[in-house]
Amino acid sequence: MLDPALDYARANRQTHLSRLCHWLRIPSISTTPEHSSDVRRAAEFAAQYLRDMGMPDVEIRETTGHPIVYARYANPQPSNLPTLLIYGHFDVQPTDPEDEWTRPPFEPTLEGETLYARGASDDKGQVFAVLAALESYLKTSGRLPVNVKILLEGEEEITSPSLFPYLRAHADELTADAILIADQDMLDPQHPVIMWGVRGNLYAEIEVRGPAHDLHSGTFGGGVDNPFNVLVRLLAALQDGETRRVLIPGFYDSVEELTDEERALIAQAPIHDGVGLYLTGAPALGGETGYPLAERVSVRPTFEVHGIAGGFTGAGSKTVIPAKATAKVSMRLVPRQTPDEVFEALKSYLHFLCPPTVKLEVRAIGKAHPVKMDYQAPAVQAAAVSYEKGFGHKPIYLRGGGSLPIVYEMIETLKAPVVMIGFGLPDDRTHSPNEKFFLPNFYRGIETVIHYLDVFSKI
Amino acid sequence: MLDPALDYARANRQTHLSRLCHWLRIPSISTTPEHSSDVRRAAEFAAQYLRDMGMPDVEIRETTGHPIVYARYANPQPSNLPTLLIYGHFDVQPTDPEDEWTRPPFEPTLEGETLYARGASDDKGQVFAVLAALESYLKTSGRLPVNVKILLEGEEEITSPSLFPYLRAHADELTADAILIADQDMLDPQHPVIMWGVRGNLYAEIEVRGPAHDLHSGTFGGGVDNPFNVLVRLLAALQDGETRRVLIPGFYDSVEELTDEERALIAQAPIHDGVGLYLTGAPALGGETGYPLAERVSVRPTFEVHGIAGGFTGAGSKTVIPAKATAKVSMRLVPRQTPDEVFEALKSYLHFLCPPTVKLEVRAIGKAHPVKMDYQAPAVQAAAVSYEKGFGHKPIYLRGGGSLPIVYEMIETLKAPVVMIGFGLPDDRTHSPNEKFFLPNFYRGIETVIHYLDVFSKI
Repeated sequence: MLDPALDYARANRQTHLSRLCHWLRIPSISTTPEHSSDVRRAAEFAAQYLRDMGMPDVEIRETTGHPIVYARYANPQPSNLPTLLIYGHFDVQPTDPEDEWTRPPFEPTLEGETLYARGASDDKGQVFAVLAALESYLKTSGRLPVNVKILLEGEEEITSPSLFPYLRAHADELTADAILIADQDMLDPQHPVIMWGVRGNLYAEIEVRGPAHDLHSGTFGGGVDNPFNVLVRLLAALQDGETRRVLIPGFYDSVEELTDEERALIAQAPIHDGVGLYLTGAPALGGETGYPLAERVSVRPTFEVHGIAGGFTGAGSKTVIPAKATAKVSMRLVPRQTPDEVFEALKSYLHFLCPPTVKLEVRAIGKAHPVKMDYQAPAVQAAAVSYEKGFGHKPIYLRGGGSLPIVYEMIETLKAPVVMIGFGLPDDRTHSPNEKFFLPNFYRGIETVIHYLDVFSKI
Repeated sequence: MLDPALDYARANRQTHLSRLCHWLRIPSISTTPEHSSDVRRAAEFAAQYLRDMGMPDVEIRETTGHPIVYARYANPQPSNLPTLLIYGHFDVQPTDPEDEWTRPPFEPTLEGETLYARGASDDKGQVFAVLAALESYLKTSGRLPVNVKILLEGEEEITSPSLFPYLRAHADELTADAILIADQDMLDPQHPVIMWGVRGNLYAEIEVRGPAHDLHSGTFGGGVDNPFNVLVRLLAALQDGETRRVLIPGFYDSVEELTDEERALIAQAPIHDGVGLYLTGAPALGGETGYPLAERVSVRPTFEVHGIAGGFTGAGSKTVIPAKATAKVSMRLVPRQTPDEVFEALKSYLHFLCPPTVKLEVRAIGKAHPVKMDYQAPAVQAAAVSYEKGFGHKPIYLRGGGSLPIVYEMIETLKAPVVMIGFGLPDDRTHSPNEKFFLPNFYRGIETVIHYLDVFSKI
């Protein structure tokens, strides 16, 4: 079964690319209500692809938010074959700032071996690679080497609000021996990655309200506290300017220290300062003092201000004391911090700091638990073998800096190991203008998953 | 001369109101190019009024922007009579948001004793009151009791770009013993105001640039300094959270302390905390500790953040480390601070504080000098006497919290005292929808200026 599938994948690269481009043309931005119908179209597109390749049982399942695509393949062979649950998402990030896109976000542009489009890397391109591997088996042998369940959602970029209850409600249906997720970067085309943990996240809004309406800063300046002035003080009080440590009382209390073995594993990753400078284009690296870059971006918690709404930001000047100012902030969390505890600590500390001249409201708008996996589990080691066959290189073991709430939820709800692989590159500009995907990784990714299904069938 | 002029003014209220309404029908919005010809029509209307009342020497003078109206009256009496320069403006603010006007902005509507129209209070109504006083003399005695020069501009609402070079180029022609400006509010109909100073202003943009492009806060969070995190720390470092004093080194060095007499004069103004709370709707008053409200909003410098551009401020969440963040800030300045010195101090301090992980740029986008006038100058005291005759109430002496660059320019260029009076009310909604003017103030304003010309002729 293996070789015909590999041959098929190699012979059909153009067809796979072309079909992926059709998917990328659907602006399935999950966070903006105007794009709801596009998210649904992206779901229908995936379902149709699964049906076309011969998956026997494909459904679009409604949620209170965007729909879920669910498919199931029960191998006709003896039932002792293992079951793999494949997870992915077909929604994408917004495209702002629009004017920094030098190619249209939703009209895929091919330049050399690179495909530009929103979602090309995160995550349509990677999900497509997994689905194309299934197609390669089904179109050559008429069957898959294992049992497969497929679960694709349209709310990953908005922290999967519908998926979590769905998982709990369908836990019996979704039982599997392992869960495969392809939604991450390699270090470079020679360094595939196995992720053995992700950071959690607490995303919050901090709103400061002062006067009942905007005031003229000449007439009233000095008479009232400006909500923006108060807000920048509150935000500045959350992080030390020298050490960049978070100053919320108790914030580090539950942070798990690395074992020597874990620290050594992380140190093997070629995440050096030169790479960091190259990838970010920053004048200098930053972040928490006392930890190497590889740890700062993966196993240390952070605090980020993402933007502040309110007041006047147009051209020229307007002398306004705004009635309110609202910051969006987030904190990446590491084992064993929990978003609930950190949110309560944040809220308490801000209310403690806030003067009585304004009203303060702190809202959690996103929560994700940190996760650490057993990198020696057989389903994970199967990925290492498959990477070596697909890419010709052994993988690097990394802890991920981003957050995948779904990983925590799946492990907690389905009690199965999660295997995190991926075919993106660090400069793919996921979540930024001019997102792109390196096509050799796309094709090697397809072959890697073909190998994975083969190796996994024997564990 | 005085009594016939007063009688004439009283007998011709309806005529004056009617002619003012014609002026208000001209939509002389200076900021929008489509209204350029309307601004010129408003200039021509004023020139024609001056000619009709018998002013011998009236000109429309071109600038690179909107035209200036200049008129001159040399008294045939012995030349030791003082000369008064009258300044005003005939341009108005835009009318947006249009849908909040419940009366048409350019079709004056009379309701009881209130006249609704854009420009009714700011400044056509007040300028007309001054011109009608001249008319009252000229139509009864055939002459004015003093020498008069009249300078009306059409760019006040766009910070007078043509007037400043005009003043410098025509300084000799514009020499006067005092400059009268009627473009301000009374506290209420029983409390006319003499303004004896205004604050200056420095309006600046502070831009922090970090990574070359937006980054994912999961992948890179902890690796680079977030420009927003740095910017909020820089902004927070500019103002003490307890005292609300500006922390820029040297900021207060040149601030002139009030004399006991000045402090007592400011304390007479009915600007109490209850009024401040009522007008702002803030949960509590704020601003610099140790000074009463009346001083904080007029003779103490401030620091305000007006808005911060960059990053993500839409609905929902986006986990971005923005490439840059740009704050708009301003500082109200008091005698003897200068916007240039404060800008340099701000820039130096921010560059001193800024870490090498980001690039910093500080730009001045608006500068206005603070001004303090001698409220005991004879030309100013003449206004106090005239107010009492015109309104039946002694004036309140106030220092203004806003900035009027034209006042500083006139004092510096023409070396003459400025007398700031006005007949508006605080709820006239100047610059807002449904601007209005209280007509009893209009008529009393005409009589006040008739008295002023009489009193001023004897100083």
